Amino acid sequence: MDQIKIFAPATVANLSCGFDVLGCCLDAVGDEMLVKKNDLKEVRIVKITGQDLPMQADQNVAGVAVKALLNTLGSKQGYDIEITKKIKPGSGIGSSAASSAGAVFAVNKILGEPFNARELITFAMQGELLASGNAHADNVAPALLGGFSLVRSYLPLEVLSLPVPSELRLVVLHPMIEIKTRDSRSIIKQNVSLKSAINQWGNLGAFVSALYTEDYELLGRSLQDEIVEPVRSILIPYFQELKKIVSAKGALGFGISGSGPSVFALCKGEEIALKVKKAMHAFYSDKNIDFELHLSGINKQGIKVL
Amino acid sequence: MDQIKIFAPATVANLSCGFDVLGCCLDAVGDEMLVKKNDLKEVRIVKITGQDLPMQADQNVAGVAVKALLNTLGSKQGYDIEITKKIKPGSGIGSSAASSAGAVFAVNKILGEPFNARELITFAMQGELLASGNAHADNVAPALLGGFSLVRSYLPLEVLSLPVPSELRLVVLHPMIEIKTRDSRSIIKQNVSLKSAINQWGNLGAFVSALYTEDYELLGRSLQDEIVEPVRSILIPYFQELKKIVSAKGALGFGISGSGPSVFALCKGEEIALKVKKAMHAFYSDKNIDFELHLSGINKQGIKVL
Repeated sequence: MDQIKIFAPATVANLSCGFDVLGCCLDAVGDEMLVKKNDLKEVRIVKITGQDLPMQADQNVAGVAVKALLNTLGSKQGYDIEITKKIKPGSGIGSSAASSAGAVFAVNKILGEPFNARELITFAMQGELLASGNAHADNVAPALLGGFSLVRSYLPLEVLSLPVPSELRLVVLHPMIEIKTRDSRSIIKQNVSLKSAINQWGNLGAFVSALYTEDYELLGRSLQDEIVEPVRSILIPYFQELKKIVSAKGALGFGISGSGPSVFALCKGEEIALKVKKAMHAFYSDKNIDFELHLSGINKQGIKVL
Repeated sequence: MDQIKIFAPATVANLSCGFDVLGCCLDAVGDEMLVKKNDLKEVRIVKITGQDLPMQADQNVAGVAVKALLNTLGSKQGYDIEITKKIKPGSGIGSSAASSAGAVFAVNKILGEPFNARELITFAMQGELLASGNAHADNVAPALLGGFSLVRSYLPLEVLSLPVPSELRLVVLHPMIEIKTRDSRSIIKQNVSLKSAINQWGNLGAFVSALYTEDYELLGRSLQDEIVEPVRSILIPYFQELKKIVSAKGALGFGISGSGPSVFALCKGEEIALKVKKAMHAFYSDKNIDFELHLSGINKQGIKVL
């Protein structure tokens, strides 16, 4: 195989109760990537459509992730990477993760799969390190594995796949103000009260339990975050108003997607999700802020070959 | 019904990764209690066998818990409570919880069960407040509900029951040095690093997942605690040595039971648990510290009528 075309989906990390350890994969939004072997012994970003992103491989998350993979293999093979960006950088739905994870997935396929999906996470995390200054796995893991991913441990890396209740829908609103993950991380306090931490791990444990028991109401109640949301939500226009609006329309819960500014409403079933989407659209339409809205199911497969 | 005799089991709280939110119920150790109506409109502790504990109802956790229940009902009925203590106070395996939870369970039965087991947790927590200065639920909940309990939220109180993998065994070593829960709590820092907190909730999420998937190895790997164990383990003689010994004998994991000084080894199957127990016995026998050892399965029922 000399070339491959893939779909690299958007992801929602943190999910309120699981900062830096929990994420899920969307099926409604994603980038496309075309990766081809070249004879130049060089990894090149040859084309980026849809966004203005660095073309130098060392400055591009896809380039950095692929190089990490090739270095581990000791391979000198070169690759040309074309990216059709549909996930906006800085949106908070795993734009850099889609590029990083998509690129290593594609190259790994061309090479005959020397690595499994879990091993690819480590390489893709190098892209996240470049993008945000922090090699977090809660976007690249669900992008590669699909469904819900839980990072039990970073050192050594251990990622679990959790079950996906079939009626779950996410409505994601992206207010088009850019917040860099790096900046959004810098406002988080590096120490937290034990009391808040206890509440957080109680909720995360309950969220995991609810995925197994398909207890949708419990999933909603577990979407609590008293550590990150109080500071990050200030950066997101009308966060508290949106929370009230989606709750009134029957959403199970509401929170910040990754480092924001995107927010998500967790819903049971397409019908409620459509109502929630409509209400968010109506509310944001007169706010003089450009926005995008996505209604998505949970993508169980993750990145796929097109 | 005018009187009832019950068995109130010991419990292991925290389980390393779930400080203040996780606990499980043992079947090998527990108190017996006899509760009888009296005509004095008064709650009395009439007899305590096996330990020297306060006989005044307002100073005894069982008395305080029963009064909380009766106050909620607006009942003036009096009760005589006899306690045969087999769980040593200050051992860290839920001695106060067994008395508090056992007493409200018994009175509730005599009254024709006006409350369900989850509602009784709140009353039993008043006993914990008296014992430790903190109304924690991670012992009284598993004592009342059996199995594994997870406290998702304290305000409002919401407790989940989690599945019990059938081959799980706990070997509990109680070095007979007394550590009061109150003192043991006071050495814990009220602020924790975000990094440690993230590791903790990743591990708790994984522990919950492993209970559902019966992944014993993952249960063991998830028994990590970098928040409380580093400070509390200093109070426990030979903690680090014990950890190594039980690991060498095949235990899945090892940690502090509740606020200590008891420690527990989590094992898969009776055979390994027996080996672990034997090794702990051999190691502790020449240390000039009195100790007790319990090998226990997980008690799925909780408190029961005798």
